[in-house]
Amino acid sequence: MLVLGVDPGLTRCGVGVVSGRPGGACEIVAVEVVRTPSDAELPARLLTLDERLGALVREHRPEAVAVERVFSQHNTQTVIGTAQASAVAILAGARAGVPVTTYTPSEVKAAVTGSGTADKAQVTTMVTRLLRLAEAPRPADAADALALAICHIWRGGAQARLAAALGGGRRGSARAWGGRR
Amino acid sequence: MLVLGVDPGLTRCGVGVVSGRPGGACEIVAVEVVRTPSDAELPARLLTLDERLGALVREHRPEAVAVERVFSQHNTQTVIGTAQASAVAILAGARAGVPVTTYTPSEVKAAVTGSGTADKAQVTTMVTRLLRLAEAPRPADAADALALAICHIWRGGAQARLAAALGGGRRGSARAWGGRR
Repeated sequence: MLVLGVDPGLTRCGVGVVSGRPGGACEIVAVEVVRTPSDAELPARLLTLDERLGALVREHRPEAVAVERVFSQHNTQTVIGTAQASAVAILAGARAGVPVTTYTPSEVKAAVTGSGTADKAQVTTMVTRLLRLAEAPRPADAADALALAICHIWRGGAQARLAAALGGGRRGSARAWGGRR
Repeated sequence: MLVLGVDPGLTRCGVGVVSGRPGGACEIVAVEVVRTPSDAELPARLLTLDERLGALVREHRPEAVAVERVFSQHNTQTVIGTAQASAVAILAGARAGVPVTTYTPSEVKAAVTGSGTADKAQVTTMVTRLLRLAEAPRPADAADALALAICHIWRGGAQARLAAALGGGRRGSARAWGGRR
């Protein structure tokens, strides 16, 4: 399956596209960081992000979009910008009819490192290893976006197997949403 | 001028459309509260909001969109949802090429009541009076959205007169953004 992961942010928004199957190897398809100038007006920044994320969804036609869930433990002023960027990312998938799932940072860390409390360096190391990259993706937003996509591929597979074992084809995650086609 | 005001929220998003000119009387054109169920998934909620706000902008073709600026003094978990809804509202204007301006709650209160620390009841009373309504708009989100639109009409006029007095046609507000046509 092809998954587009987004580490949302107004100044730097990481986007990683990964193909793979649950339990199997993952391949990097694309990675980029969408940037908007911090001195630009908010509407212009959100529109830039919206246009680029929309274009990436149209270009790659992912089967799923995975976005990092925004939490309140950060600096509250930063959290507002991150929440606004996450809304744009979620809409980019939802408008295209692509299922969107959100994951907490701990879920992503646990998926790629085995520990929900791993630090950023450990996540970057594991993303580099899992995708067999010659060098680490930079900046950290790029590595985080790739980790989100890997997390969705692996967890999605586990959910599908669980649903199958329970005798239904139903999606297992309470946080997944099937979109509108 | 015709202004569409938005009091952003995920559960209740107030929208008010007001026509008027700076220093003159204002007329209500439309008011509604867009609601999304709190037990629905976030992507579905954001998409519902996006579709309705986009439809209202296409229907009314406002010359400006005024959105309440999100602040961090609220409950941080609530602030995340409000910030996400505000991003959808700002994008609805920006995508349509309509200039979007954000106002703090204090700016809106000061515009319609003369005091930046007025309470909600006072804002509702003044909105009802200024628009010569037979009864108060309910819920408060509807009154707040109308107040935002009135605030923009009045402040926009003051800014235009200031800019004219300064010898330029330039917009005076650092928070206004002209959109893309």
